[in-house]
Amino acid sequence: MKQFKLHAVSKKARAGTLKTAHGKIQTPFFMPVATKASVKLLSNEEVEGTGTQCLISNAFILYLKPGLETIKKHKGLRNFMQWKHSLFTDSGGFQVLSPDFCLKLSNSGVLFRNPFDGKKMLFTPELSIKIQNSLGSDVAMCLDDVPIHSSSLPRLTQAVNRTIDWAQRCKKAHKNKKQLLFCINQGGTVRELREKSISSLLEIGFDGMAFGGLCIGETKEKMFRTIGATITELPESMPRYLMGVGSIRELVESIALGIDCFDSCFPTRTARHGKAFSSKGSLNIAAAKFKNDLKPLDKECNCFVCKTHSRAYLHHLFKTKEENGMKYLSYHNLFFLQNLMKKIREDIKAGSFKPEKYA
Amino acid sequence: MKQFKLHAVSKKARAGTLKTAHGKIQTPFFMPVATKASVKLLSNEEVEGTGTQCLISNAFILYLKPGLETIKKHKGLRNFMQWKHSLFTDSGGFQVLSPDFCLKLSNSGVLFRNPFDGKKMLFTPELSIKIQNSLGSDVAMCLDDVPIHSSSLPRLTQAVNRTIDWAQRCKKAHKNKKQLLFCINQGGTVRELREKSISSLLEIGFDGMAFGGLCIGETKEKMFRTIGATITELPESMPRYLMGVGSIRELVESIALGIDCFDSCFPTRTARHGKAFSSKGSLNIAAAKFKNDLKPLDKECNCFVCKTHSRAYLHHLFKTKEENGMKYLSYHNLFFLQNLMKKIREDIKAGSFKPEKYA
Repeated sequence: MKQFKLHAVSKKARAGTLKTAHGKIQTPFFMPVATKASVKLLSNEEVEGTGTQCLISNAFILYLKPGLETIKKHKGLRNFMQWKHSLFTDSGGFQVLSPDFCLKLSNSGVLFRNPFDGKKMLFTPELSIKIQNSLGSDVAMCLDDVPIHSSSLPRLTQAVNRTIDWAQRCKKAHKNKKQLLFCINQGGTVRELREKSISSLLEIGFDGMAFGGLCIGETKEKMFRTIGATITELPESMPRYLMGVGSIRELVESIALGIDCFDSCFPTRTARHGKAFSSKGSLNIAAAKFKNDLKPLDKECNCFVCKTHSRAYLHHLFKTKEENGMKYLSYHNLFFLQNLMKKIREDIKAGSFKPEKYA
Repeated sequence: MKQFKLHAVSKKARAGTLKTAHGKIQTPFFMPVATKASVKLLSNEEVEGTGTQCLISNAFILYLKPGLETIKKHKGLRNFMQWKHSLFTDSGGFQVLSPDFCLKLSNSGVLFRNPFDGKKMLFTPELSIKIQNSLGSDVAMCLDDVPIHSSSLPRLTQAVNRTIDWAQRCKKAHKNKKQLLFCINQGGTVRELREKSISSLLEIGFDGMAFGGLCIGETKEKMFRTIGATITELPESMPRYLMGVGSIRELVESIALGIDCFDSCFPTRTARHGKAFSSKGSLNIAAAKFKNDLKPLDKECNCFVCKTHSRAYLHHLFKTKEENGMKYLSYHNLFFLQNLMKKIREDIKAGSFKPEKYA
């Protein structure tokens, strides 16, 4: 893949550059979610301040609201949200398959009910790509069939086959030459199914490959074992994306296995619940012990929250339900995580990357 | 009052400087509320970006939570919230008298129930000043007795007398030499009562005087008539503060009557409800007509929201309940209002202030 350049490999961990139509992303990298075209509680300037290189939005959700007409009038999603850097869109397969939306799943696609007008609609691989082509993100994701955790072997097999078929249809439908197209492998934690999924998708040919249907309830050990056993099937030149992963430990261990790219709502969602990352482990800022604590969230962190506010003040904001509490922790968590990714990239290049160093 | 310097008077409108322990405030000025030591949804840096010179917090609310111990440990409220500019504290009289708190009002003070521990407590003028001395705001406000709108003449008279008595007790209790002390006149819309209130308070002697108990349900005409008829009783050297006023029209007309200082939650609260100020009147961003509107909130506004985002995008954020919608409108409304105050100050100095020019 000519858009992806590998600069260094330290054991299996990789440092490289992914070039998109709107920037060069240093890998491994983490994408905060801007599901509805906005990172919750943070302005673009603040998101940039955290060291974020790339965001990910949700094509299906944005198709429902505001709809494509509005975004086309803005000449694409990046303009609509005024994000100047790289942008992924997820197909929305994971969301449309949730019980909130899905009426019937078949080979043709997902029959779902639009919650805004009550109408039944069919979400197909072709439609998903048409939407993402039109949104004009830098990287589009294929629509995949994501079986729930603890699915039976027949269901996992069906999902693997359907996801391969849908990936073929996505590739055929993909018309936006400036947009990269990533596929998603499936197969639960069954090694043979993952391998089949990977080899079939490689045959079709994509700009990158994601591991899908993981981190949805299986044990971490099974997740890491599945990735470790099958990632070797991928050519070195292909960027590897682990979807839905955003805790420090999972990020670090996945990077050690050779993953280049991540997205997750976890750092910002957990922040809104009062959990702050720190170099001494995470802390729950609403806990009574922080009431009079003059220290910053993390004295080793250089983010504006840690340089400005005490734990006691942040505790007060949470106890009095001031939204700024959620905002400050969201900023800190993203900054902390992006700073960690930066250190990891440097360490991989220096040959000193060791998972136990960070988590 | 040596801390207040008058630079220009245009008809009755005044432009001056109020010097506090932490800055020189150009008057007339508007204070956004940071009731619980935080302007909702905006960081200090963002609040500074709106052109805000001074904030106002609520002593009573902060006394309840986080309590004085926490704030003392931070060496005062400005340090606790890390606000580097001037800061007022309101006594909290208006809040403690609300049915949410007040059990019994008497000459000694307000008996209230602490919502956090259920205990009955007496809030007195002395306690209010002790709290504000300890918070270390630049300007403290006397505790006043605020009768509800449409109170009877005996009740209004009682409130005037009690407020004078309490002001005397406040002045006696006031020990923080770096902190200015403002009194509050009462009297509803009854000219004779206001005049009595003002003359008695002037006799006691304060650094500034607020008009209290207005903008609480009476007609705007009655409010302006009351101010206009009684503000002439005040010496030119005394800063005049109209509490709780924050709509464009009210600000402009009050400045025309000689008011120097304002506070209100209105610009930020109305923003959270989707109302944006603009030079063509206010607009409700959630209205369907903005769905595909590529224009900024106000094309004459130079705030980062107007320079960055379309009405359609802001409409989308409100329709999808993304908190950033409320945040962006809060920023815009404060910027718009502070920019208006700046223009008004310049116009007063240039002798070209005309109320009908702005509202």
